[in-house]
Amino acid sequence: MSNQILLSHGSGGLLSHELVRDIFIRHFDNPTLSAEGDSALLPALPAGRLALTTDSYVVQPLEFPGGDIGKLAVCGTVNDLAVAGAAPHYLTAGFILEEGLSLDLLERVVISMAATARAANVQIVTGDTKVVERGAADGLFINTAGLGVVPPGLALSPAQLEPGDVLLVNGTLGDHGMAVMMQREELAFTSTLKSDCAPLNGLIAALLAAAPGAVHCLRDATRGGLVTVLNEWAESGVGITIQETAIPVRDAVRAISELLGLDPLYAANEGKFVAAVAPEAAERALRALRAQPLGREAAIIGRITAKHAGRVVLETPYGAQRILQMLTGAPLPRIC
Amino acid sequence: MSNQILLSHGSGGLLSHELVRDIFIRHFDNPTLSAEGDSALLPALPAGRLALTTDSYVVQPLEFPGGDIGKLAVCGTVNDLAVAGAAPHYLTAGFILEEGLSLDLLERVVISMAATARAANVQIVTGDTKVVERGAADGLFINTAGLGVVPPGLALSPAQLEPGDVLLVNGTLGDHGMAVMMQREELAFTSTLKSDCAPLNGLIAALLAAAPGAVHCLRDATRGGLVTVLNEWAESGVGITIQETAIPVRDAVRAISELLGLDPLYAANEGKFVAAVAPEAAERALRALRAQPLGREAAIIGRITAKHAGRVVLETPYGAQRILQMLTGAPLPRIC
Repeated sequence: MSNQILLSHGSGGLLSHELVRDIFIRHFDNPTLSAEGDSALLPALPAGRLALTTDSYVVQPLEFPGGDIGKLAVCGTVNDLAVAGAAPHYLTAGFILEEGLSLDLLERVVISMAATARAANVQIVTGDTKVVERGAADGLFINTAGLGVVPPGLALSPAQLEPGDVLLVNGTLGDHGMAVMMQREELAFTSTLKSDCAPLNGLIAALLAAAPGAVHCLRDATRGGLVTVLNEWAESGVGITIQETAIPVRDAVRAISELLGLDPLYAANEGKFVAAVAPEAAERALRALRAQPLGREAAIIGRITAKHAGRVVLETPYGAQRILQMLTGAPLPRIC
Repeated sequence: MSNQILLSHGSGGLLSHELVRDIFIRHFDNPTLSAEGDSALLPALPAGRLALTTDSYVVQPLEFPGGDIGKLAVCGTVNDLAVAGAAPHYLTAGFILEEGLSLDLLERVVISMAATARAANVQIVTGDTKVVERGAADGLFINTAGLGVVPPGLALSPAQLEPGDVLLVNGTLGDHGMAVMMQREELAFTSTLKSDCAPLNGLIAALLAAAPGAVHCLRDATRGGLVTVLNEWAESGVGITIQETAIPVRDAVRAISELLGLDPLYAANEGKFVAAVAPEAAERALRALRAQPLGREAAIIGRITAKHAGRVVLETPYGAQRILQMLTGAPLPRIC
């Protein structure tokens, strides 16, 4: 096999079949995928409501401190299911490859996807590969879709938010966005910073088990960061207040944010969620999160309020209040 | 809203929300999508085995005679489910947009997807949009994943193929591939030729109802065309013989194929499948196909044999035999 992606790898012919067999089936390695039908026929799922989600990934660079586009593609879709209360089971993977892409790089990304899928206890059961000519894409784009099951009786949504609910995050904010920007801008001064990219389904299962019935809504704080999630929640008709000093942000993230003129509260995370929990269960929820590796730096950051409905308000240490609006411009393109 | 896609449309902020609301939710128009969760929570499905599939679409040009990338994305995924014997129910849609893409074009594509989804009786229940900077993609790529249900007792796969099975196609071959090539090469001489792009789930349901238990295997003949499907089937250990004169090919497709040095039997179709049917049911199956608009030109083209296992053999009108091998080079890039 050539060490670069050729247009023939996307033809549906012999090279396509070799690529599927030698890279995808070999590393993803499960009987459903290996059946190689046009559709995966799934083993029976547990009882509950099905949840379906999809995301495309166009992050640049393809590899960055703490992860790569493949790990991101698995985590992102697993996490979208998990914050809906669904146990993720099966993933699809669609690859758009640019002619000339290194096969070694592709294999590293696929190995990373396979390892992340194993860590998240999901299987990649069906896929697709397209190749476009040089200059028609930027190396590699990945789409994943995911299927999961919400157990009977569980309903998480902004409609469940109630004044008094306590807001928690499972750790520091902005790490993914700033790690990618650091790599992209070739800023070398904070070598310790890496993406928080991680599958959160195990942590969320622990949280739901520790505070049954008390978790009202969850959302992963990806593109647009914490503030975007909270504004989406506020649109359901509640008010939200958060305390600036309570929000965990790493010093390295603060430093890069200031250097680049960005706000870590709007920066992407790929291993962080926000939870709204009934007040009487908040301490229990916090302990449950902190007991897990991916929740060690969890914190209570604010509350749902009956005041200032529709608005997200930041309280500063000096007693001032600032409205945090939805991101309107200055996007960070291709952060995920 | 600007009449072009901006990087801010992919930021997760205000413009992203407007795009989702004014284009995607408006046209796809169903309550599951409108709930706007990170995952779609699906209404209960009928009993049966779940089937899951995905495909990415990178066709160029984005609009061509008989279809566009959006229609293709819905048909392709619906058809992958249908040939697995699954009734398609729900689709996801992931869009990768190039900065500067015309919003009018995007809306036309989305309207086309919505119309095709209605025709196929499926719902697009969740989606995602990413924007990359000018030059990092080629206008618009779409990924769709699809979820369907195989009714209890139905099992279609190459393992069901038996010597004696009759091979049928539901109409002329090569129309999609040659229509796209015609458009791309700006060949104007065959204005009647268009892509066969169509959702086949209704036609396949009619076939399965007309010949219950007698349909052994189905496959849509997309990238790589008829010969690729038959070679994949032959790999399961059977031999295959087809008659050159029995294979329906339009004169316009033949003409363009000769002009471009291509073989219509390797050309992509987006509304054609191959069926292997028990011999006693073959005539009934053919009548059932011909009774439907998408099967009017259906034909019996060959048989599964116990001879020349692993090989696909073409019998010419002059009595010669030719082995049809898997496509090895000369791909037609970005045909779907």
